[in-house]
Amino acid sequence: MIVGKVIGTLVSTRKLNNLVGSKFLIIESASNMGTDKRIVAVDQVGAGIGDYVLVALGSAARIGATREASIDAAVVGIIDDENDIIDKL
Amino acid sequence: MIVGKVIGTLVSTRKLNNLVGSKFLIIESASNMGTDKRIVAVDQVGAGIGDYVLVALGSAARIGATREASIDAAVVGIIDDENDIIDKL
Amino acid sequence: MIVGKVIGTLVSTRKLNNLVGSKFLIIESASNMGTDKRIVAVDQVGAGIGDYVLVALGSAARIGATREASIDAAVVGIIDDENDIIDKL
Amino acid sequence: MIVGKVIGTLVSTRKLNNLVGSKFLIIESASNMGTDKRIVAVDQVGAGIGDYVLVALGSAARIGATREASIDAAVVGIIDDENDIIDKL
Amino acid sequence: MIVGKVIGTLVSTRKLNNLVGSKFLIIESASNMGTDKRIVAVDQVGAGIGDYVLVALGSAARIGATREASIDAAVVGIIDDENDIIDKL
Repeated sequence: MIVGKVIGTLVSTRKLNNLVGSKFLIIESASNMGTDKRIVAVDQVGAGIGDYVLVALGSAARIGATREASIDAAVVGIIDDENDIIDKL
Repeated sequence: MIVGKVIGTLVSTRKLNNLVGSKFLIIESASNMGTDKRIVAVDQVGAGIGDYVLVALGSAARIGATREASIDAAVVGIIDDENDIIDKL
Repeated sequence: MIVGKVIGTLVSTRKLNNLVGSKFLIIESASNMGTDKRIVAVDQVGAGIGDYVLVALGSAARIGATREASIDAAVVGIIDDENDIIDKL
Repeated sequence: MIVGKVIGTLVSTRKLNNLVGSKFLIIESASNMGTDKRIVAVDQVGAGIGDYVLVALGSAARIGATREASIDAAVVGIIDDENDIIDKL
Repeated sequence: MIVGKVIGTLVSTRKLNNLVGSKFLIIESASNMGTDKRIVAVDQVGAGIGDYVLVALGSAARIGATREASIDAAVVGIIDDENDIIDKL
């Protein structure tokens, strides 16, 4: 998994039906983490802008989902006390 | 997922049968996004050149498809008002 | 998917049984495409050296295959008129 | 797989139910290894800070797990005598 | 797939049961190949140090395996006459 910060949200009206109801978050991966500087992940835990979050990539992103959806990244946790570990991220 | 811009289309007459009927779009991933600068994705939402689109990678690309096809990237949404969020992409 | 050029072939006599009969092509990914500069892909459409080809990565590579094989990249199409789109690749 | 060093742990109180009970380790991949400099992996072998560990990525991370969980990286082994091979990592 | 050279082996006594009996090889991917400079792969064809080998990544690594194991990279072939093609790797 990677850790990143929620820096925005994204709206897509014309999308696959299996994505209807999904909340798309723009995540900036922590400086030393993640293959991609920024990605879009579906929120599964009620995260908001400014939160540091745990993001599962690939097929792992669909395991928590209530239905099969075309997603390859999901926010699966909100980090506690990120300030204590920020230098390690 | 990543966000990218549709910059072209691609034709492949000699291809696997399970790809017949697929529309191949050349996607340039938004500057801060995506492992690969450009990829080829199959269109699943009627996107066209110039559209900013949401692209699902890996096995996620096949979930929305009506049949099993040899694809690892699919356009699953068209972004609304990309100008509002372009700096975050 | 990525687009690349077939620049060579590769022979592996000592290999897993499920790869026997596979034709291994060395692919150089188009300059702006692909995570890896070069990869080895199994040919599924009769491509040859010099062809520009469409390559499916990961589990997508096994969908077109007639049997389960230990492959993570497959040539699934040959590009038409690559010269028209070369600047976009 | 990649080899990395456990450099910290991470706590996420608000997370998916299927992650409850998981121990999240922050792994710094050995200098020549791994796509990402640092990742978060779930511990499956009792590793601790300072250990050099073997990390399985993607769907492989879920094979050893006792239940389906939204994880894409898992610590699946602790390296013996890493000093003997450190130059190769 | 990628091509790489076996440059060492690795021992992990404390590991998941499903990895017991696996031979871990340290692979340096050929200069133009592969996302990661070095990775650890499980040997499935009897490769040794100095061999140039074909490595399958991701879920492909588990297809040849006799049992479900937490592996994401496997040596699935030994390259013949690598000197003839070394400039292409």
